[in-house]
Amino acid sequence: MIIIMHSEATPFEIDNVVAEAEARGWQTHISHDSGETFIGLQGKGQPLDPFHLGQMPGVKETMAITQKYKLASRAFRREDTTFTIGGVTIGGEQVAVIAGPCSVESREQLLETAHAVKEAGATFLRGGAYKPRSSPYSFQGMGEQGLKLLAEAREATGLPIVTEVMSPNKVALVAIYADVLQIGARNMQNFDLLNAVGQAHKPVLLKRGMSATIEDLLMAAEYILAHGNNRVMLCERGIRTFDNKYTRNTFDINAIPLLKELTHLPIVADPSHAIGVRRHVSAITLAGLAAGADGLILETHPDPDHAVSDGDQSLTLPQFRELMNQVRALAEAVGRRV
Amino acid sequence: MIIIMHSEATPFEIDNVVAEAEARGWQTHISHDSGETFIGLQGKGQPLDPFHLGQMPGVKETMAITQKYKLASRAFRREDTTFTIGGVTIGGEQVAVIAGPCSVESREQLLETAHAVKEAGATFLRGGAYKPRSSPYSFQGMGEQGLKLLAEAREATGLPIVTEVMSPNKVALVAIYADVLQIGARNMQNFDLLNAVGQAHKPVLLKRGMSATIEDLLMAAEYILAHGNNRVMLCERGIRTFDNKYTRNTFDINAIPLLKELTHLPIVADPSHAIGVRRHVSAITLAGLAAGADGLILETHPDPDHAVSDGDQSLTLPQFRELMNQVRALAEAVGRRV
Amino acid sequence: MIIIMHSEATPFEIDNVVAEAEARGWQTHISHDSGETFIGLQGKGQPLDPFHLGQMPGVKETMAITQKYKLASRAFRREDTTFTIGGVTIGGEQVAVIAGPCSVESREQLLETAHAVKEAGATFLRGGAYKPRSSPYSFQGMGEQGLKLLAEAREATGLPIVTEVMSPNKVALVAIYADVLQIGARNMQNFDLLNAVGQAHKPVLLKRGMSATIEDLLMAAEYILAHGNNRVMLCERGIRTFDNKYTRNTFDINAIPLLKELTHLPIVADPSHAIGVRRHVSAITLAGLAAGADGLILETHPDPDHAVSDGDQSLTLPQFRELMNQVRALAEAVGRRV
Amino acid sequence: MIIIMHSEATPFEIDNVVAEAEARGWQTHISHDSGETFIGLQGKGQPLDPFHLGQMPGVKETMAITQKYKLASRAFRREDTTFTIGGVTIGGEQVAVIAGPCSVESREQLLETAHAVKEAGATFLRGGAYKPRSSPYSFQGMGEQGLKLLAEAREATGLPIVTEVMSPNKVALVAIYADVLQIGARNMQNFDLLNAVGQAHKPVLLKRGMSATIEDLLMAAEYILAHGNNRVMLCERGIRTFDNKYTRNTFDINAIPLLKELTHLPIVADPSHAIGVRRHVSAITLAGLAAGADGLILETHPDPDHAVSDGDQSLTLPQFRELMNQVRALAEAVGRRV
Repeated sequence: MIIIMHSEATPFEIDNVVAEAEARGWQTHISHDSGETFIGLQGKGQPLDPFHLGQMPGVKETMAITQKYKLASRAFRREDTTFTIGGVTIGGEQVAVIAGPCSVESREQLLETAHAVKEAGATFLRGGAYKPRSSPYSFQGMGEQGLKLLAEAREATGLPIVTEVMSPNKVALVAIYADVLQIGARNMQNFDLLNAVGQAHKPVLLKRGMSATIEDLLMAAEYILAHGNNRVMLCERGIRTFDNKYTRNTFDINAIPLLKELTHLPIVADPSHAIGVRRHVSAITLAGLAAGADGLILETHPDPDHAVSDGDQSLTLPQFRELMNQVRALAEAVGRRV
Repeated sequence: MIIIMHSEATPFEIDNVVAEAEARGWQTHISHDSGETFIGLQGKGQPLDPFHLGQMPGVKETMAITQKYKLASRAFRREDTTFTIGGVTIGGEQVAVIAGPCSVESREQLLETAHAVKEAGATFLRGGAYKPRSSPYSFQGMGEQGLKLLAEAREATGLPIVTEVMSPNKVALVAIYADVLQIGARNMQNFDLLNAVGQAHKPVLLKRGMSATIEDLLMAAEYILAHGNNRVMLCERGIRTFDNKYTRNTFDINAIPLLKELTHLPIVADPSHAIGVRRHVSAITLAGLAAGADGLILETHPDPDHAVSDGDQSLTLPQFRELMNQVRALAEAVGRRV
Repeated sequence: MIIIMHSEATPFEIDNVVAEAEARGWQTHISHDSGETFIGLQGKGQPLDPFHLGQMPGVKETMAITQKYKLASRAFRREDTTFTIGGVTIGGEQVAVIAGPCSVESREQLLETAHAVKEAGATFLRGGAYKPRSSPYSFQGMGEQGLKLLAEAREATGLPIVTEVMSPNKVALVAIYADVLQIGARNMQNFDLLNAVGQAHKPVLLKRGMSATIEDLLMAAEYILAHGNNRVMLCERGIRTFDNKYTRNTFDINAIPLLKELTHLPIVADPSHAIGVRRHVSAITLAGLAAGADGLILETHPDPDHAVSDGDQSLTLPQFRELMNQVRALAEAVGRRV
Repeated sequence: MIIIMHSEATPFEIDNVVAEAEARGWQTHISHDSGETFIGLQGKGQPLDPFHLGQMPGVKETMAITQKYKLASRAFRREDTTFTIGGVTIGGEQVAVIAGPCSVESREQLLETAHAVKEAGATFLRGGAYKPRSSPYSFQGMGEQGLKLLAEAREATGLPIVTEVMSPNKVALVAIYADVLQIGARNMQNFDLLNAVGQAHKPVLLKRGMSATIEDLLMAAEYILAHGNNRVMLCERGIRTFDNKYTRNTFDINAIPLLKELTHLPIVADPSHAIGVRRHVSAITLAGLAAGADGLILETHPDPDHAVSDGDQSLTLPQFRELMNQVRALAEAVGRRV
């Protein structure tokens, strides 16, 4: 249930309603939207009488939420959620562009990429220090050394850092260096990890699992939100379907307008994983933007053919620069800017 | 195998090569591309020695094609195939816009729609007279009477007609009225029907089956091409995946750049079926265009809530008009026009 | 709606109810089950008042059917449908075993197979004379000559014939030779073909489309039933999923108990297509039987490595004989017989 | 690469080969199979010359492994892996039966279930103390208290315990109480967790992810094996497909014979999750056994309609008893025993 207070409700009135709900065993979660105060109730308290609540001073209306996700739903928050990281506001008119290599491989590789993507117009730097690899025999990332290189690249370019965290006991460490904590597709339902980033003080980029439904994705976001972290971006990165002869995944473009309707959280498109073929990344990037994405995340590498991971889908630096020109033209046509 | 003749090869030299191949039991299929003559060999003839062939007068080179589809492949024809229907050229710079109701329901419904979509900028009128319905108890279409109404709407507006044919023994009848023969998703591998439209003298719009791979689609096109009809458009209309709670299908946007690479045939996007939810059709239309589609097919209806079929995904006439404005702006940003 | 008449209802009372329904614009469909008469109403008549109907002499009860499929549903017929072909009863205690080559290739190949599978315990002979092939350049079947060979094999062995029909205008011809008309997976929603076999006087084996839902399959059966042919067997032959590296399809074993619950029609398992790998066909055959299949259809060939189609999944004749021994042992353990 | 030593090779000869490989930077992994010693090489050492190795004393042959999974492959170990837990040998003639509730809810619920399943013939007790739930608002398990109840139930019945661990930092705790550590489907690619159970001294039951390919599953097992834990059971529990109207998942029965061919590890079928509908669990259990499963895991509950989780798919205790009778009959027919 959500209780919406009148815009002129006093703190005393709000506290009263909270106390009433908590006395019945509910946890409360307060947010502000369009000048109104929303009190969300979670957990398994005793039934509350909407009529009685509606009579309490300051209460404007009460609302049952039938979706399983509550804090993530548009019913709980009608306005788009926006938040600002390193001067870039996510979720508004500006389209965030997150670019960089799949894996941090070396100081040279990272800094060359960081300067190039910055110059081409990227607003965030991505790079993996901990890599979830399907084989135990593949490169597993540079670890903390990689995080330090990312921090160095941020100092050199001013770009905030997006990097993945794979385990609850690494969240504190990664949060020291990162500006945005990324949860990978394979960990979308690693609930202990979701709880851990829910308690972190950094925004989260949550990737959709490769066979997660839209509802699964929103429920995973709900774990993070319910633990107190409201700064969550959702990322569509392609799903598994029957057809994978020519592409790595199937980009679920439908998810973009659908998520914009169901949730107030910003949506990021990941064309690199979504198609997995370098020469087709541009087409998918433009499609994602046209469909309404609030951000783009693109793998770029100075020498993709020798990348330690995901080289097949990484853009070269000139390709990224060229793509940014197309992105700018398209953004204007759909009323956005980069 | 494909034999490419020098651009200055004489008809006599070409005939000689054809005769040689046919003497070995091959069927030959001649096409012209960039000023060169291509001789495609089909069927199961005896092996031909590429070296010997290469020595024959006029032969420039021979090429094995490893894809199962041959006539549909870029190897067989490197330039985009274009063809002109009712003054509109498909496959070039202009984006074809095919609009109209799912089913032809009445003279009034059809004519009102036809005039409105024409005015808004559509270049083709669609409408079903024979309807493949999952239930035997649902409306199955007006039949020939519907075809006659379509012909009347063409006369009234000048828009060429796209309409579905479901059975080999109806091809001749439908071809009398239609400008483009549509093969529906459920019939994509109805091989007798593909053979029949392959012999018809009308262009074909071939919809991808809901679980057809890209290769399946190209092989289905190959049936039509192999029977002598070169004017085939491929249509991506959404596939079946694990996630159908909120949408009817999953639009496989990856298919668009992929098909543009693999085949020379024009590609049409069908946002209406691809997402199946009226308020999201616009986002998917723009995405399809941004990804490189050569045409768009959109269900429109004067009163979708009372449509006999597919009302949930049909645009109202004002929605279609509004969408066309967005389409025009986006087309310009990606170097196309409507 | 279904109207169930008392067991002692007179023909006059039954006719009265039928007349009442038809007067309101309904089509009626009469069946008998457990000594009672069922009157099924189809089409789009005017609403009928269940209370008024319930008062009519001879009426026991009326029942709304909410499933989209009506004649195929257990609500319409609670007992298992059984029917006898060439002395074998399908849908009862006995498990039907349909064996033979994918394609009829020659007199020798067919007769050798027919005698061998008969001796090993098969109760039907299968073989394709018209072949739906994904490539126009592949062998398309021997046509009527193949049908004649099948008829000859029937005379030689006494085994009834199951063979595919691909086009409405071939139904009459195929029905001359065949004992069971097979509809292939790719034609499951070829509605004109379903209508045609619905009017034929031969039982039908309807294969599930590769991405057809259970409901789609039952609706396809409904087309056949609604055209008057009650002798329909449903066939699960594997579906398309994300995993096809090692197998051709994914056998949807869940479909077997589910279909046995939802419909009264017999269910046949097709392990050959379901897994597509010869050495694993036995395991899937036993699984299908254990899950409750009423019949098995198995591709067998004297020399699978030189078969013109589906050799990879065809059992050799000794493998089939060995499998039949396992089938007999398992059938006994689950209360069936072969 | 795998180096196979002659059966009469001396420990000195074996050590020599190991030293040679390690000198080139390889990690070695020794196993014994059919009286021969196998030396598996992992990691990224310098190339080794097979010819040179083949000349070393005691070496019988060397073998390149092209699959990405090595230790899990049949090439590495041709015999079935078996291991004994609490007196029950997994992977041999006997079929392991793991039964119990989804969640441990109370002492009474657990002990009643444990005694009942023991009496009916189960050989392991399952029960979840840590529950991965898609909603943060659902019951998350009793935690360590649940583990203590499981240990009490083991003392009371003698049944070894199978229970899930969700996080690397809980592995040590769960391993104190559990006999088998279960990795849930959602954590199949939680690589830090796989590494942690790879270092534990307890057998592991690894569930296939809901969209994991067979190769993904084997690669996940490879993580555990590569960290030194050889006692791994693989579990097929249903995958996500386009059809989920009537069932929770699609049981991939093909996976059972396929996995038996590709790997030496035991395979367990989970009919409860595979179909998700109580009244159909029996059919799927029998199918899994007929297809070759080495074990069965079945949710059972004294009062499923009031279970806190997975009640819809849990068998009642009498249903479980009845199913065990069918399982015994079928096991005998396929040459196994319970």
